[in-house]
Formats: sequence, structure tokens, C-alpha cells
Amino acid sequence: MKNFEEKMKSYVDYIEKELKNFNNYSHENRPQVKLIDAMNYSLRAGGKRLRPVLVHAFCEALGGMIEASSAPACAIEMVHTFSLIHDDLPAMDNDDFRRGKPSCHKAFGEAMAILAGDALAVLPFEIIADAQHLTPEQKVLIISVLANSVGRDGMIGGQVIDMENEKCDNVDEDNLRNLYRCKTGQLIAVSCVMGAICADADNETIRAAAEYGLRLGFAFQLIDDILDVTSTTEELGKPVGSDEASNKNTYVSLFGIEKAKEAADKATSEALEWLSAIRDNEFLVTLTEKLLKRKY
Amino acid sequence: MKNFEEKMKSYVDYIEKELKNFNNYSHENRPQVKLIDAMNYSLRAGGKRLRPVLVHAFCEALGGMIEASSAPACAIEMVHTFSLIHDDLPAMDNDDFRRGKPSCHKAFGEAMAILAGDALAVLPFEIIADAQHLTPEQKVLIISVLANSVGRDGMIGGQVIDMENEKCDNVDEDNLRNLYRCKTGQLIAVSCVMGAICADADNETIRAAAEYGLRLGFAFQLIDDILDVTSTTEELGKPVGSDEASNKNTYVSLFGIEKAKEAADKATSEALEWLSAIRDNEFLVTLTEKLLKRKY
Repeated sequence: MKNFEEKMKSYVDYIEKELKNFNNYSHENRPQVKLIDAMNYSLRAGGKRLRPVLVHAFCEALGGMIEASSAPACAIEMVHTFSLIHDDLPAMDNDDFRRGKPSCHKAFGEAMAILAGDALAVLPFEIIADAQHLTPEQKVLIISVLANSVGRDGMIGGQVIDMENEKCDNVDEDNLRNLYRCKTGQLIAVSCVMGAICADADNETIRAAAEYGLRLGFAFQLIDDILDVTSTTEELGKPVGSDEASNKNTYVSLFGIEKAKEAADKATSEALEWLSAIRDNEFLVTLTEKLLKRKY
Repeated sequence: MKNFEEKMKSYVDYIEKELKNFNNYSHENRPQVKLIDAMNYSLRAGGKRLRPVLVHAFCEALGGMIEASSAPACAIEMVHTFSLIHDDLPAMDNDDFRRGKPSCHKAFGEAMAILAGDALAVLPFEIIADAQHLTPEQKVLIISVLANSVGRDGMIGGQVIDMENEKCDNVDEDNLRNLYRCKTGQLIAVSCVMGAICADADNETIRAAAEYGLRLGFAFQLIDDILDVTSTTEELGKPVGSDEASNKNTYVSLFGIEKAKEAADKATSEALEWLSAIRDNEFLVTLTEKLLKRKY
């Protein structure tokens, strides 16, 4: 796709601007301004913005206006950021760096990092409920699928499985696939689903978006695991080898890099097949192919 | 009111049953079952259930059916429980006990307590979005006011002000009133507001519910402060004198017990005045009066 990089840049620019609007603070002298600072510190630390890009890309591919997907796009990035802040805490993964910068608790202290994460877990639902370009029916459906993908059977459930696995000697492929589905797949899938809902897609199309997202999420997590072994700290912006150091069972540690690459290829092919149900899928096809080849 | 205790018991029984339903888990052998256990451990630790009782009482006082307020009532108790779990963490208030039992991180470890709190911060929005007896318009409004009362200008913002105040020598009454409004008042006010929305109340009535709740919340927090000084650990179910030990500025520490009692009386009187806008307010009037005289 000729204009892929341009389109990607325009999405990311739009997302950065909207994120600022949604967590702006008109009363800089309020006592809780440090909370906003901590939230913005982590929100503005960059990253690929993959999830909000997927929200917008699905909305536009299915004929929706980008304004309609603005709140859900920012919401999913807030959820993702909340999970990173809490993941990095000393009681969790105890990571001092995130995206090349001190992690939130290193910059603002542990208590403020807990609260900044909490606030970024709740604000997404407020901005969706208050969104301008969505009907009440769309908002309710989006909030339901978003909360579900974050909760017990989604991202948070996945983190618990991850923790339990560290104590376990016989983690098998089924367990790992379920873990990746919860921990990474659900948030990526719900990004696609929310975009489709914003475009008023029918149920069949929404299902295709979900199936695509789950496979993309699986491939994405596999590549994350591979890069944790093969990349450098500079390329990755976070310490490499952290999975091994923390005794994490990953697809790579259990089955080796080659098997992991094969599984990522297969999941990507399946993802591309599901994309055929999406009308103007050119940008999404290129994005999917590029994600398989990413180096960071 | 003759049947006050009976009515209160029926509300609390209903809430306990509904809380179980909303965080029940059909697949007990799933790997994330420990997360559900941790969530339920704190959810079922008891407490007064004041906030969900207010949701139901406002809904019924304004002619709504109790089923309509079921999801918002459980949602507010989940939010309250999430805040207690995170508040008790070592990086926050570092409390080993809550309601006479080991706090969540003492029973399940710090990482699981963080995740259980996170899950209880998100589940409320899912159960409201999926509620059976509310219209999409009611759900969107409830989610908007609930998220707002939890976030930057609500409960979480209040906790940040509380932390900042500990480093501060010149906390004045305005600061403290703002703190109490954020930290305690907003969640109590939104309980009343959600109940009114469930009953399809008009805007004027919703406003009366909010004004009542803010004043009740202020009185409630003042009495909490007073009991922290005058009660015993057995009566309170948590260590007394914890405010002084942690160097917290409270209305009591700044202005003395007598001034605090006067302020609680005044706030309660104002709360009762706002209740005159609520149709069948008998239960709520008795509840308000009893809360002023509580010993735990």
C-alpha cells in the first residue's frame, strides 16, 4: 500500500491529539494535579498505538467516520496504559523502565502509580459514555465488550494465569494459547470490534473483526516473545531477556524460536483470511503483514 | 419508623444474593479462579452495604422496582471494595486488617490484591451495560456519573489530595471539605443519583439526590474521623487511632471532636432538608438519623 505510512502517521497524530483532549486539565492548580501528571506521563510515553489505530482503521474500513471511533480509541489506549503501569509495579513484574523511560512508579512513587492506573481503568468508561458521535445503544455495547475484555476472562484474568504459570512445571500449549488469548488477544480483538460497532457494522462483520483480532493478538504476543530473546534493549526500549529472568513460560521457552515463528506465520495467515470480510481492508492488510515483520 | 430494621435487612439480604450472582463463576477449574476468590473474599467481607442500600432506597422511594437498581447497587459496592483493597496495600495505607479480617493482600499476596482491585474497578461497568431492567439511555447516564465519581475529581482524586495533605503543614477547612467531598461524598452521592435514575426521576429530583448524598457523605466521613479517636478496635473492626499514627489531617485533628460533631449535625440537618424532595422518604430519613448516631 503506497500511502500506508502516511495513513498510519495521520492516525497516530489524531490519537495523540485526542488523548491530550480527553485527559486535559483546566484547573492546573487543583491539588490532584499530580495524578493527572502521572496519568499523562504514561499515556504520552509513546508506544505503537496499535490498539487505537485498529479501532480507527476498522471504523473507517467499514464506512464509519473517524470522529465516531475517537472515544473508544482513546479508551483502549488508556486501558492498555493502566495495565502497563500496574504490570511494572514492584509487586508485579518489578520493571524500572518502560518504553525507554523510568516506569510510572519510578517517576511518581508506588502509591501514585497505583492510583494513576486505577484512574486510567475507569476514565475509558466515562469518555465512551460521554462520547458525542455514538448512539446510547452503541455506547452500551462498546462498554460491555470493553469491560469484558479487560476483566476476569480477559486481560486481568490473563495476568493471573501468567502468575500461576510461574509456579507451574507442566504448562502445555493449550494453557499458553488460553493465556495469550486473555492477556493480549482480547484487548486487540475488542479494538477491532469497537471500531466495527462505531461503523454500525452487522453482527457477522463484528464477528469477523473479533476473529481477526484474536489471531493478530496471538501473532503479536508470539513476536513479542521472540523479540525478547533476539532483540536488543535499544531496539526494544525495555530490557531484553526479561521473560527468562522472571522464569516466565513462553511459547519460545517451551517450543523454541522456530516453532514460535511458524505459529506466528499461521496466525497471521488466518488473520488475513478473516480480513476478507472487511470492505476497504487495504490498510489493515498492510498493517497485519508489517506487524509480522516488526523488530520492536 | 417501625419496620426500618426489617427493611434494612431485606435490602442487605438482597444485595448479598445479587453480589454472589454477579461475581459467580461457573468454571471453578479455570486457572484464574484465584482471582475470583480474592474478589469474593473482599466483596463478602461484609461491611454496612450503605452505598448499595442507598441505591435501592432511592430507587424504591421514587417509585422504581428494586430489580432496576440491582446492577448499579452491586456496581457501587464493587467500586467501594476495589478502593478498600488498593487503599490497604503496603504502598498506600499499609493496613493488615479490614473489617476484622486480614486485608486482601495479606490473604492473597500483593500482586493478586492489585489485580482483584483492578477487576472490581472494571466489572461494575460491565454489569451495568449488561443489566436487564434499564434502558440504554439510563445505562449510559449511570455509567457516566459513576465513572466520574470514581475518577480524577472523585474518589481517586480524593485519595491523591489525602496523600498530598500528609506532606502539608497548613491544611485548611476548604481543602478538607474538598477532600471529604471527593474521597467519600462523591461515591455516596452517586449511589443516590443512580437510584434516582433507575426510577426514571426528573432532573430536579436527581439533583436533590446528589445534594443529599454529598451532605450525608460529609457527615459520614466526619463520624468516621470521630470514631477513629473515640471507638475501640473491637467495635470498629479495624485499628483505632490509625489517622493519628499515619499523620493524617482530619477534621478532628484540626478542629477537635466538638467542632467535628457540630459539623456532622449541620450536614445531617441539611441532608434531611434535601430529602423533602423525595417522595416516599421515610426509610431514608430514619437511615440518615441513625447514621449520625452510629458507633461503628
